[in-house]
Amino acid sequence: MARFEKVPDIVIGRLPVYLRALTRLASEGQEITSSQQLGKMLGVSSAQIRKDLSYFGEFGKQGMGYNIAHLQEQLSAILKVDREWEVVVVGAGPLAEALIREDPFAGKGFRIVALFDSRPERIGQRLAGMEILDSAQLPEVVRQRGLKVAILAVPAAEAQQVADTLVAAGIKAILSYASTTLSVPPEVRLQYNDAAAQLQRMAYYLQ
Amino acid sequence: MARFEKVPDIVIGRLPVYLRALTRLASEGQEITSSQQLGKMLGVSSAQIRKDLSYFGEFGKQGMGYNIAHLQEQLSAILKVDREWEVVVVGAGPLAEALIREDPFAGKGFRIVALFDSRPERIGQRLAGMEILDSAQLPEVVRQRGLKVAILAVPAAEAQQVADTLVAAGIKAILSYASTTLSVPPEVRLQYNDAAAQLQRMAYYLQ
Repeated sequence: MARFEKVPDIVIGRLPVYLRALTRLASEGQEITSSQQLGKMLGVSSAQIRKDLSYFGEFGKQGMGYNIAHLQEQLSAILKVDREWEVVVVGAGPLAEALIREDPFAGKGFRIVALFDSRPERIGQRLAGMEILDSAQLPEVVRQRGLKVAILAVPAAEAQQVADTLVAAGIKAILSYASTTLSVPPEVRLQYNDAAAQLQRMAYYLQ
Repeated sequence: MARFEKVPDIVIGRLPVYLRALTRLASEGQEITSSQQLGKMLGVSSAQIRKDLSYFGEFGKQGMGYNIAHLQEQLSAILKVDREWEVVVVGAGPLAEALIREDPFAGKGFRIVALFDSRPERIGQRLAGMEILDSAQLPEVVRQRGLKVAILAVPAAEAQQVADTLVAAGIKAILSYASTTLSVPPEVRLQYNDAAAQLQRMAYYLQ
């Protein structure tokens, strides 16, 4: 993978967006697309799309466009989501329930395999069919199963402590729904799923 | 507000992130911060933070740092979240339930005031205490209440049609949880809350 080493993270961040657009086109029965069409769908320039993809080789013949199925496969392989990563969720609340029930990760490279909570009255209960395990067992389960990916769905006040535990156990990627800023070591990836921040960003433009 | 007109959207997108970091510092009892401390928390340079804030005037005295409460107030005003925007949610599923129950928007400028679904068996029911209204009434309610902000929580296959309805009714900002790419007119803001895409972005770095 050495040849990908210098790809800017901002480019990596756009690949899932391209994948999402390709999924829509495929669902509508389309087989071939172009950087122009993708750019128009996404509100970016076709040049940006071509340049982003060029980091990873050739995906289409000049003037022929992209084969959608092939590009989906290639992007999935680049992002390493052509396999299924096992995901641990910490915090057995309404959000965890929604994620388990709606399973937005199906077919996208991730599967929730374990659910933890620290509240004694929740431990041993089931949430959307999944057993709620005791957070005290978290490090052991993460290590034994070799889990790398975690979703943090605990209250903001507990989030840093849980993040520290996850990192110590070997988690390398955290998606946090807690509405606070977290600190993790540089080798651990962190993304915030912060709906309030997304609405705030748009509110600026409202009259 | 004319003096803000030329602020790049990427800068606007970072203001809620700064606000989130300030909230953490305030919750820990801190009263003054610096661009250095914020930069370290957020993994960005202090120069970027100073430059971003400089679009909007002076927030601190040279060498004195920022008063956290004051900066929070100013950023909230700039983002127009020093008021409460009424939000409509379309799609009365588990995710809508989580948003209503957990209320991640409390104190952040938004309040869910109406919930719609098109499935006859859902209409008239309650979800987390909120009545599920008939989607057929959506345009009328949006217009009558002058709603500007919507959350889309319907299946991907229905998302574009619902987005079109929202836009036609006067919605100016859409946060979509549907896992598909949407098309809206340029005067309407659109953000995707796509947990799968966020995990995919991090998977690239996993070994």
